[in-house]
Amino acid sequence: MRSPLKQFQRRLSNIPADAYLVTNDTDIRYLTGFPAADSWLLVLPGKAFYMTDGRYLLEAREGLQGVVVKIYKESMFRTVFELCRKQKASRLAFDDRYLSLAKFKGLKKEAPKGARLSACPRLIEGLRIIKNDQESSAIRCCLKLHHQALKYLKSVIKPGKTEREVLLVLERYVKTKGAGFSFDPIIASGRNSCFPHARVTDRKLRVNEPVLVDFGIDIGGYKSDLTRIFFLGKIPPSVTEAYHAVEEAQKRAIAAVRPGIAAADVDRAARDFLKSKKLDRYFVHSLGHGVGLDIHEAPGISSRSTVLLKPNMVFTVEPGVYLPERFGIRIEDMVLVTDRGCEVLSK
Amino acid sequence: MRSPLKQFQRRLSNIPADAYLVTNDTDIRYLTGFPAADSWLLVLPGKAFYMTDGRYLLEAREGLQGVVVKIYKESMFRTVFELCRKQKASRLAFDDRYLSLAKFKGLKKEAPKGARLSACPRLIEGLRIIKNDQESSAIRCCLKLHHQALKYLKSVIKPGKTEREVLLVLERYVKTKGAGFSFDPIIASGRNSCFPHARVTDRKLRVNEPVLVDFGIDIGGYKSDLTRIFFLGKIPPSVTEAYHAVEEAQKRAIAAVRPGIAAADVDRAARDFLKSKKLDRYFVHSLGHGVGLDIHEAPGISSRSTVLLKPNMVFTVEPGVYLPERFGIRIEDMVLVTDRGCEVLSK
Repeated sequence: MRSPLKQFQRRLSNIPADAYLVTNDTDIRYLTGFPAADSWLLVLPGKAFYMTDGRYLLEAREGLQGVVVKIYKESMFRTVFELCRKQKASRLAFDDRYLSLAKFKGLKKEAPKGARLSACPRLIEGLRIIKNDQESSAIRCCLKLHHQALKYLKSVIKPGKTEREVLLVLERYVKTKGAGFSFDPIIASGRNSCFPHARVTDRKLRVNEPVLVDFGIDIGGYKSDLTRIFFLGKIPPSVTEAYHAVEEAQKRAIAAVRPGIAAADVDRAARDFLKSKKLDRYFVHSLGHGVGLDIHEAPGISSRSTVLLKPNMVFTVEPGVYLPERFGIRIEDMVLVTDRGCEVLSK
Repeated sequence: MRSPLKQFQRRLSNIPADAYLVTNDTDIRYLTGFPAADSWLLVLPGKAFYMTDGRYLLEAREGLQGVVVKIYKESMFRTVFELCRKQKASRLAFDDRYLSLAKFKGLKKEAPKGARLSACPRLIEGLRIIKNDQESSAIRCCLKLHHQALKYLKSVIKPGKTEREVLLVLERYVKTKGAGFSFDPIIASGRNSCFPHARVTDRKLRVNEPVLVDFGIDIGGYKSDLTRIFFLGKIPPSVTEAYHAVEEAQKRAIAAVRPGIAAADVDRAARDFLKSKKLDRYFVHSLGHGVGLDIHEAPGISSRSTVLLKPNMVFTVEPGVYLPERFGIRIEDMVLVTDRGCEVLSK
């Protein structure tokens, strides 16, 4: 299997550039395997240069194979063009989503005569969106621990415990295993669950209410993301009804997933069902998002998405309804697109 | 005391713009008090609009006072110009450090005829760099817990414990108090301490070596940041020597802090002393950074900084020396610039 960096270098020949400046830490991690921070990577067809400051020199030298480490002292911009000059590269491409306007101006100012800067976005995204075997194994590894943690939570989530107490126990469990979280976990009980991105509070869990638990595991940079609802006591029919509707919406969306279908159509499968239950106006977010080295990455699964699904894409399917002042229900699983449909990774 | 938003609105009259688009979450939090995420804030002299997506609508409506909440459906860019049109604002300013080139192009594309976009950076930074009483109280509050946590760590850091075990205990202590961390804590023992931004490992702490502990407390968005070295057993003279040199470098830098002095001169005070001890080439980062709602914010205290210190700036003073393959020493405290000198907040 060709390394991501080698694959990317091959693709450089398809664009009108001599070198590509990678300014996104996660893209750099993807290409090199090194957990980059405050750094840029200059990629040429046969070479790559990792630019960072003195704080990271030792780790970078130890951790990067086949990449030259350069420390910039005065200006990252100047270091880029010094390298370009030595490598006889005058046409420099980059992803304009990951370069601030200020930094772009800084680059332009330092660019020598004859240099050409051009935005060429989503080149690395195009690689990252398709997971190789190693990557899907890493995600499965996160999900394995994720399921263990959920099982463990069953004995923890009891009336009288506060959301924060549940979080602390979950945190200890996950971190003792050497893993981390891919985002701040959501433990939202009762009314708090009506906020799609609720923050953990000191509210006590009570009987006869749902507890929404949404977290992600991070192992070595790869991530998982699942949402489950725990029910305490006797659940009111309105909640059960919403739950079943969301469950069915998710089922329909997952059934729609296959290579060639538009991501927007998968979103629609869930949204249309919720519409038939008059719940669509409470479904205030998109259906899902890719997961990999970033917790939110391509493909976005929304009504506006233009992506056509392909084998080995990995994303969440997470319909939800949020009834203001009352409660929210979201069910989130992760799927891997296969040759004919999809595999639910999180069952 | 005028609210940050009101103060900022007053400053708008100094720039050639009718409205200011705030695209940085922390700036929005500073201005409104609301922990913003994935949102933009459009500020006009007498009004402000918070633009977000459906996920945050309820929290935003509950949490924002004196700010109109707008949900963008199709495009954030279009929503901006719809609001501008209704408010008869044609000249739109923004901070180009917090707008990607791609988003800038997106804005330009949606801009109606006659609209003018202009970069006007560091306007909010200019307010944030001077802490008001409420802000310094919030930072003191973080430091109080920080000291308690350090005291507690004394009983935890023992030979045989792993770095990760120490981290877990620290984490539990801090989170049980309802606080969070402002960045991933560094617990770096022995050789690991030679990486300025070391990651926690499963290495066991051993006698006769230093343990570098660098973490920050986050309470309600405001932050602390301190580094301490714990010594286990008998410390070799070379380590003690380095420690005393760093300690003295810090002392000299802190003594230099006063209104009117250049931040670069404070950096130099420490660097020159380390030079006299032939240790300056191991001091691979800048002397310090501002701390507030961001863990790294203005003023940067480096040899390249052009900032002149003013009363009520808050920043770290953290000289360090890192001897490759051997060990690293960093001592980090936080100071508040006063009318005549500075107060060490972390003593």
